[in-house]
Order: sequence, then structure tokens, then C-alpha cells
Amino acid sequence: MQSAKSALRTLAGVGARVLNSSSRTQVRGYRAPLRDMKFVTNEVYNIQDHYSKLKHVDGSAASPDMIDAVLDGFAKFAENDLAPMNQTADSEGCTWVSGTETKTPTGFKAAYDSYVEGGWQGLTYPEEYGGQGLPPSLAIISSELVATANWTWSMYPGLSKGAINTILAHGSPELKEKYLHKLVSSEWTGTMCLTEPHCGSDLAQVKTKAVPQGDGTYKITGTKIFISCGDHDLTDNIVHCVLARLPDAPEGTRGISLFAVPKKHVADDGTVGDYNNVKVGRIEDKMGCHGSSTCEINFEEAEGVLIGTENKGLNHMFTFINTSRLGTALQGGCAAELSYQLALDYAKERLAMRSLSGIKNPDGPADPIIVHPDVRKNLLFQKAISEGARSMITECCLLWDNMADAEAAGDTKAARKIDDRMGFLTPILKGFLTEVGCEAANKGIQIWGGHGYIKQNHMEQVFRDVRISAVWEGTTGIQALDLLGRKVLLQKLKPIASHVSESLSYLRGAMFSAQSSEMRSHAYTLIKAHVRWQYLTTRIAIKASSDKDFVGAASVDYLMYSGYVSMGQHWLKMEEAALKALKRTDLTQADKDFYSSKVDTARYYFDYVLPRSDSLATTMMTPTETFTKITNDEFDAAYN
Amino acid sequence: MQSAKSALRTLAGVGARVLNSSSRTQVRGYRAPLRDMKFVTNEVYNIQDHYSKLKHVDGSAASPDMIDAVLDGFAKFAENDLAPMNQTADSEGCTWVSGTETKTPTGFKAAYDSYVEGGWQGLTYPEEYGGQGLPPSLAIISSELVATANWTWSMYPGLSKGAINTILAHGSPELKEKYLHKLVSSEWTGTMCLTEPHCGSDLAQVKTKAVPQGDGTYKITGTKIFISCGDHDLTDNIVHCVLARLPDAPEGTRGISLFAVPKKHVADDGTVGDYNNVKVGRIEDKMGCHGSSTCEINFEEAEGVLIGTENKGLNHMFTFINTSRLGTALQGGCAAELSYQLALDYAKERLAMRSLSGIKNPDGPADPIIVHPDVRKNLLFQKAISEGARSMITECCLLWDNMADAEAAGDTKAARKIDDRMGFLTPILKGFLTEVGCEAANKGIQIWGGHGYIKQNHMEQVFRDVRISAVWEGTTGIQALDLLGRKVLLQKLKPIASHVSESLSYLRGAMFSAQSSEMRSHAYTLIKAHVRWQYLTTRIAIKASSDKDFVGAASVDYLMYSGYVSMGQHWLKMEEAALKALKRTDLTQADKDFYSSKVDTARYYFDYVLPRSDSLATTMMTPTETFTKITNDEFDAAYN
Repeated sequence: MQSAKSALRTLAGVGARVLNSSSRTQVRGYRAPLRDMKFVTNEVYNIQDHYSKLKHVDGSAASPDMIDAVLDGFAKFAENDLAPMNQTADSEGCTWVSGTETKTPTGFKAAYDSYVEGGWQGLTYPEEYGGQGLPPSLAIISSELVATANWTWSMYPGLSKGAINTILAHGSPELKEKYLHKLVSSEWTGTMCLTEPHCGSDLAQVKTKAVPQGDGTYKITGTKIFISCGDHDLTDNIVHCVLARLPDAPEGTRGISLFAVPKKHVADDGTVGDYNNVKVGRIEDKMGCHGSSTCEINFEEAEGVLIGTENKGLNHMFTFINTSRLGTALQGGCAAELSYQLALDYAKERLAMRSLSGIKNPDGPADPIIVHPDVRKNLLFQKAISEGARSMITECCLLWDNMADAEAAGDTKAARKIDDRMGFLTPILKGFLTEVGCEAANKGIQIWGGHGYIKQNHMEQVFRDVRISAVWEGTTGIQALDLLGRKVLLQKLKPIASHVSESLSYLRGAMFSAQSSEMRSHAYTLIKAHVRWQYLTTRIAIKASSDKDFVGAASVDYLMYSGYVSMGQHWLKMEEAALKALKRTDLTQADKDFYSSKVDTARYYFDYVLPRSDSLATTMMTPTETFTKITNDEFDAAYN
Repeated sequence: MQSAKSALRTLAGVGARVLNSSSRTQVRGYRAPLRDMKFVTNEVYNIQDHYSKLKHVDGSAASPDMIDAVLDGFAKFAENDLAPMNQTADSEGCTWVSGTETKTPTGFKAAYDSYVEGGWQGLTYPEEYGGQGLPPSLAIISSELVATANWTWSMYPGLSKGAINTILAHGSPELKEKYLHKLVSSEWTGTMCLTEPHCGSDLAQVKTKAVPQGDGTYKITGTKIFISCGDHDLTDNIVHCVLARLPDAPEGTRGISLFAVPKKHVADDGTVGDYNNVKVGRIEDKMGCHGSSTCEINFEEAEGVLIGTENKGLNHMFTFINTSRLGTALQGGCAAELSYQLALDYAKERLAMRSLSGIKNPDGPADPIIVHPDVRKNLLFQKAISEGARSMITECCLLWDNMADAEAAGDTKAARKIDDRMGFLTPILKGFLTEVGCEAANKGIQIWGGHGYIKQNHMEQVFRDVRISAVWEGTTGIQALDLLGRKVLLQKLKPIASHVSESLSYLRGAMFSAQSSEMRSHAYTLIKAHVRWQYLTTRIAIKASSDKDFVGAASVDYLMYSGYVSMGQHWLKMEEAALKALKRTDLTQADKDFYSSKVDTARYYFDYVLPRSDSLATTMMTPTETFTKITNDEFDAAYN
């Protein structure tokens, strides 16, 4: 087996070859933000230092050159192969004819073949299954490029990663041997099958049945809906991870088991055989994300095998769900990034009105709309969210590395500590970043004006595609209950106490060592916001002790408050790194522009976005009766 | 000519006949909110009293029975004929084949024929052109029903109203005679042609040319885009109101004239002849509003006639634009209403999870999601916006009546006063109601969860359709500049001073006569919000005197602040009327539910929505440099 280093060299070579292009072209619609990605990984997080400390993987293999090679390879692939298909995928969508394979949009298969050929999927998976064994974080960080350029294409390999992680964590050695090689090479894909027509997040209601056949296999019967990438023509086989109930399983979520159910039977030697009884009922016609097939799948005594332990299926599935939640958080950031790029291009080109503070484009019939303060505000919002999201997700990725390290070392105490921290951060990332990601895309339409409503201009697609992010993998409401109910209150406020305490420790330091009075003021603002966060949590806990509905009533505002304050902390870190860099004497003009833009965007965030937390602090304490006093009949009263 | 009364009797009869139904059916997807419309018109605004005081029309003809007949007729038409076509119109869209007419979605033509047959369009137009001469407000109030049931269908007669109003106000007697009969009967429709490929709101850049032919006609040449209902198969002819420049006209907006350009030539006796040189270039493929054709129209030496005075075209067009802005504000309210109804049905039916405060549906596998506080919050938001919008729009409609009265009486002083007030209210209504209307529709998707993203469930269409409302007829940014720049600051704060002063006078009375301590507290909150509104305006004026960009930077937040506070005042009025009604002893349970729901929704608005104005008060004072310090190159810095 190749070493990680040589695999990478091969991979980078394949990438370049596949892309038929030695230099990146400035594709209107998507430019890889490599400068910012390198800033976040190197200057905010010192990722080299982080990688060098990892033990479960050869972190030293992830050298600066190698990281650059990976990012550059993904960037080329994203810009040259994926971005040009983003709009055509939307207009073509996926088509399905009964009895045949689902057809993905033109070009998806060719791009997927390149991806398989380049070995990209295996980047961070174990060498024993054909991976390159690099740190897990690198896969997520680099996936931003693919996901921004063409979100729906990225879902096919993205969902597969969830399946790989789930089988890696919970599968038997035989199951791993049978499925992981092809999944890691991306010759097969994987899906998650949770939702049924009558239940989505409320998995206690799952009805799909699994009947053991006595030979280690099970017959799975039931209908699953909303199965992303549930069928397609990209690969020879698909491995569905399916939640189902064994006969006599306990009611509710404690009676759910997890099964691997392939689209086509797989022999013990790994060869693909006939179709399993896994039938696509239909493909959904959706608001957006047309390039990814969303399938109703009917399992009709389909053959499957158990993943992990009977009746522990929901627990196991959370490996998949957590992968997907972080991926969905990324979707919010990606939409902010793509909508920013599209809006920025337009705002610099489109001429309308004169600047109120004096003509800026005297030779033209009007000024470019980027001169108007309201347009700049909207652009800055998109920029602040995109770059803030990148930093927030990177932080979480690095924790993922540490978790893998602790687990590999058998250090359950350390692993649990990291798990607690990720459990606290994940609903904030998923809930908050998708909401503000939708808002950023929405602002893009506003910047484009009427032209933003026209399909050929791409902008409205970004909104339609990202809109689902605040819904799937659990709506914002579900994330909020997870954060406030399950993570904070059930654990007696410990997660928030430790988070605030760690943050305050950093913030106090930042305030005293601040490199500008502005940064000092930002640190001070965040100190107050964190103290208030703790105080609000305590008040909610007291209220909730006598009023159970208070948790549900306060939760979404609490989540959004948490998100704005958390992103503020990331902006402070970025401001700090940028101010430090600006003191260097070797900066080019491009460098100076870059670091100044960081300082300017931080200012915008603190002056203009963070104050939203004030209203949220008020509204989250709204008495429950404001929402519950109205009766169900009264809701209908205008129609009687 | 028939009297208004007998016309109405005929009209109500035709309505009933056309609809093939003697009783309204509860069409899932749309139920006419007649109970609430009657509450607002009768109990909040005492519309009978208002009508009886009008002089330019026979207000007494608008008796309670007649108003009921009109609303019921529109309700039946909306529920039975229009609502069932809303989704099919979205999936079919409009199709255009070069050289032939544009085909509207199935059913649009039949419904339009019924509309013509029933004489609905003429309801409030002068009897001399075939109208029924009822007060103008009645047309707008009742149009909500049609617009909510099927927004895109309603655009065809809606745009025509703008054309009628424009020709009525500015056309020569010959022009009126030639066009108005057919427009008022709705046998023809009208459009507004402003936007060109290179300019939308910045009409100073209009390039379309008009060359006088010496016989009273003009040859119009140029390309107009985004022409709503620009071509269709509903009527025999279309009258385009087109902005164009005469030879040697002054540059900028002072050199624009307005022309009536028919799709087909019209002889002096009114008969329709051959095609004019008005050619559809294409139909836009849009995010939503698929049922309305959005056309590029090429005028190639097309024959037209002047409307009004040379070079005063933009002034004249503002009659059309103001009609359209109020119509667009209505679109926001309609989307809130429709999305509320769709979400409410779903929230009562869909079972998921158990209420945290105890099981509410013990016989089912889970509780309906309406029990969850976050779902109720979202439903209440939709309800508060829909009903608040209805009250805000009704107030503006009644001013429209008064304006028509003052103009008919030649009382220019009174007319100007009302015009000033409407000029202050219109950008708030248009800007604020469309923004919160979009948010309400967006919350509908959230309530539906994954099912809200699926086209067949209708919910996502409501969002796609309403999304354009915050853009067309001037984006929220344009409305905000109109409000803060043109209406408030240019008039030296007079409009805000008089508005705040009038409001405070009402609020002080309401506080002292409040029928509940809660209402008293709401009135007090609004007093503070109004004082702050005045104070913020003054501060902005001072800042703006030395920093011209401050107006643009503050304007959108200022507009949204104005909107939240204004809607608060309407909720106080509704709360007051409901509390008064609740003291009556003759109430049915349905009445009690209705009035209680008003009080409950007011509470929600004051506790949960109005606090948003706090953050806006902070952010609108953000220093300009927060948005302007970043250079144009810095915006791009992440990609270098």
C-alpha cells in the first residue's frame, strides 16, 4: 500500500491531469477562497502545530506543501469541473424512469469518475481500507471548495462519508471488510434512511420492519422518504443505512436498529450481483437542490445486515447524523460564500444612481451600486457570515481530530470531554449557520434586484438550494431543543459554564493584549455578551423548573444568541491575527488588502450584526403564555 | 347606464352563477378571512361612517349589505375559481412561441372571462367609463381575496388598474374615451414599461426613444424588460404605458415622457386592428410568479400617443407606481395569510413528539406539532403579520378615498396634506410589509419541515412567489431612501413630526382609557417607541448634515423600525376594538374565540415582535465608516 505522502503526490497529479488545466481560471460564479482558507488554518489555528501533535494519524505527513496540494487540487476541481455544472444541474434535475437507474444531471458522472480516479474520498480514511490516512479535519476543510462550487454534486460523496463513518465506528470486521473498500474508494456511495412518510425527526414512530433470517441476514420492509442521493447512475452500488424495528423490539427510540442494505447484492468476495428488493418509489420535485436525487425508497423484504448492536440503531445513527449536521452547517457557510461572490461581481459592474456623498464614476452614466451604503452593508453581511462560518467550522474540525486521537488511544475521559464540547457546538453550528446562510443568500437576491429573481443569473438558485439546510438533519427548532434542552439543561448547565469560562479566559487576555483600541472594545463587548449568556441560561433554567414549555419557547432565540456571540468570538480571533499580520513589514498590497479587509469585516460584525443579540436576549425571556394562551380554535377564528 | 346598486346586484348574481356554487367550500389552501376583514373595516375603521362622508362618490351606495355582497362575491371567486389554479399555474407557467400569443396557465382565461362578465374590474371606477362608481378603497380591500388565492392571476387585472388610474389622472379626454371603456370593463389589460436592460430604478438612464410624427402620434423604439403581464391570451388587446425620451429631451429624469402604446392598433371608434410593432423578445424564467408572464418587449417604431405632458412622464408614472407599491405591500400581507393557512392546517394534523408540558393527544402516537411552543411562535408571527398588514393597508385605502374626494372638490390644500401622509406611509407599507411577508412565508416552510421543501405541498411556492415583492416597484433599499431621504429629511422632518404627534395624541388617550392593564402597557410601550422614533430621526438628520452617506447607511433599519412601530399601533387599535367587543353579552363562542385571538395576537406582537425595534434603533446609528472604510479591492481580497 502506498504511503500517505506518495498517495498525495499521485492524487495531486491526477487532479491536475483530470482538470486539463495548469492554472486556475477566474470562473465567474466561483473562485476558491484559498487565501482565506489558508489564513484561517495557518494564522488563526496554526494547523501545522495541531497536526504535529496528533498520534492516531501521521500528522507530520500533512505538511504545509501537502495541505496546499490538497487545497489546490480541490480548488481546481471545484472551479473547473464542478462550478460550471451548478446551474445546468438545477435546470435539468434528476430523472427517474421506473425499472431503470436514476439519471443525474449532465456531467455529474464524468466529474464523479474523476473524483474516484483521483482517490479524493479516501484522503482521511484508514490505509487498511485504501485511504490515505490524513487527519479527518482535512477532508471537511477542503470539502468546502467542492460544496460551494456545486452543492448537489457534493452531496453524493458527502452522504457516503456519513456511511463510512458509521460503518467504521459500529460495523463488524466482516461488514467493514465487505463494504468499506468500495466506499472509501468512492466506487460505491452510501445513504442514510431515517424518515418515513408519517415521521421525520420523531424517530420513535419508525415503522420499517426487520425480520432476522437466522443466517445473519434480515429482511427489511418499509417505506423511507426524503432519501438524499437515494438512487443515481454514478456508481455500481449504493449502501443504504436503514433504521428499522426488529420483531418484539421495545416501542419508541429504544427499539430501533440499524442495517446496511445494499441496492445490489454483494457476494462475500465483494462482487456485485443482482438487484436487492430496494425500489425507488419516486423522486421528489423540490424547491431547490435539483441535482441531488431525493427518493422515496420502498424496501420490500430487502436483504440487509445489522450494523452494531440490536436496538442501539439510533445511537449508532448519531455518528451519521453528526457528520451530516456539520456538513449542513457547512452548507450555510457555502451559500454565504457563493452568494457573496455572485453579488460582489454584480455590485461592481451594475451602474445605478449616484453616490450620495459625491460622484464616484464620473466617466460612466451612473456609479456602480457597490458605492451605495446599503449594498455594502449587504455584501459585508455575506462576507462576515461566510468567513465567520469558515472559522467556526474549522474549530470544530480540529476537535474532530482530537476526538479521533483520544478514541484511538482509548482515553475515554478525554474523548468524552471532547464529545461534550462538540455536542455543545454542533447544534449552534448547524442551527445558526444555516439560518444566517439563508439570510446571506437572500441578501444576494436583494443586491441583484429584479435580475436576482431570474433563473439564468444563478443568484436565486443559491437561496433555493440552501433553504433546505435549516430544515434537514433536524430543523432549527430541533437543533435549539438539542442545545438548550439536551445539552445545556439536562447536563445541569455544565457545558455552558465551561464554555463561558474558557471564553472569558481568552477574552480577558485578548482585551489586555489587544493590538488596537477597537479590538479591545470588541473583546469587552464579548465579555459582556458571554456573562449575559451565562446569566440568561441560569434564568431559563429557573423558569423551566416550574414551566416545562419555557424551554421550547426560549430555545430558538437562545440558539441564535449563542450563534451570534460565538461567531463574534471567531471574528475577534480573526481580527487579532490580522492586526498581528499588519505589523509585518514584508506585506504585499494584496496582503495588506486582505488583512485590512479582515479588520474592516470584524468592525462590521461587532457594530452591525452582534447587536441582534440584544433583541434576542429580550425575546428569549418572553413568558410562555404569550405563545400558549391562544387556543387551537382561536388560531382558526378568522375563518368562521 | 346602470346605477351602482343595480350593477352590484347583477354583479353578485353573476358571481354566484359563474362559481357554480351556492355555498363556499373550505378549500384547503385558501379560506377567505371574511370575519377578520369585516372586523377591520367595521370595528377598527367604521367604514360605513367613512363612506357616508365621501362626496365624490355615492358613499351611501356602499351599504353594509353591498359591501358584504362584494366581499362574498370575491371570496367565492377566490376560493372556488382561483385558489385551485394556484399550484398548477406555478408548474405550468407561461409559454411563448415566436409569432403567436403568450399562453397563460390552464384555467386563467376562463377565470378572467368570468371576471369580465361579472364586471368586477369597474367596481370603483367612474360610471362614465362603465364602472360602478363605488369608493376606491373597496377595490383594494376586496382585492386581497383574489391576490391571496392566486397572486399571479391577480396581477393581470391588478396591473390594468395602474394603467386605468394613470390614464384617468393624466390622459387627454380623447385618450380616456378611446381606452378607458375597455380597460374598465377589463376587456383589455394594461402594463407599465419602465425597466430597460441597463437600468431599473435609475430611470435617469432610460434610452427608449419617442419620435413625434406630427399627427399626434409618436414612433416608440427601445427595449423594455421585466414587463409583468406584458403579453398573454386573456384579452384582445393590451395597453402599454411606456416611458421614453423625445428627441432633444433634457438628460435625466426631467426628459422622460409617458406614452400609451397598444399591442394592436385601435381605430378612433375603438375597434381593434392589426398588430402594432410591439414584439415580445422572450419570457423570463423566474424563481416564482410563474403564472404571470414577465416579458422583454421590443418596441420597433411602435405607434403610441402621449399621456399627459411632455417630459413629465416620470411624474405621471408615479400614479401607476404608487398604485403598484400599495399592491405590492398587499402581496406581503397575502403571502403571510396564505402561508399561515397552509401552516396552520399542517400544524394541527402532523403528529411529532410529545409536548414538554405533558401529553396533549393521548390517543395518538404523538402530539400535533401545534402544541410545541416554537411552532406556535411561528404561526403567531404569520398571523400577526397577515392581520397587521390588513389593518395597515385598510388605513391607507381610506386615505385614498379622502384624496379622491379632495381632488374632486378641487381642495388642493387638503389633497396635498393627504398626499403627504400617503407619501410617508407608502414606502413603509411597501418596504416593511414585503420584508415581513417574506419572513412569514419562510416560517411556513420551517413549520412544514422537509415537506415544506416539496413542491406539491404548495408552501415553498408561497415563498418563491412573494420573494419578488421586496424587489419590484423599488427594492427595500429604494423604499428606505424614499422614506428617510425624500419624504422625511427633504421635508425637514415635518412628516415624521406630524405623524408622531398624531400618534402620541391617540396613544395617550388609549393609555388612559385602556380596557386592560395589558393594553395600557402596550400603549405606553408605543409612546416610548414613537418618542424614540422622533429622536432617532433628529439624530440622523444631524449626522446626515455632515455625512451624506449616513442616510443610505441608516435608511433600511429606519424603515424597518418605522414598520414595526407602525404595525404596533395597528395592533393596539385591534386590541382596543377586540377588548371592547369582548364586553358585549351577545357573543357566540366563535365571536369569543375571534376577539380573544385578537387580544392574544396583540400580546404576541408586543412581547415578541416589537422588541426587534430595539436592535434596529442601535444598528441604524452605526457610523458610516463601518460600511465605507473597506475598499472595493478589499472586498475581493480573499481570492487573490
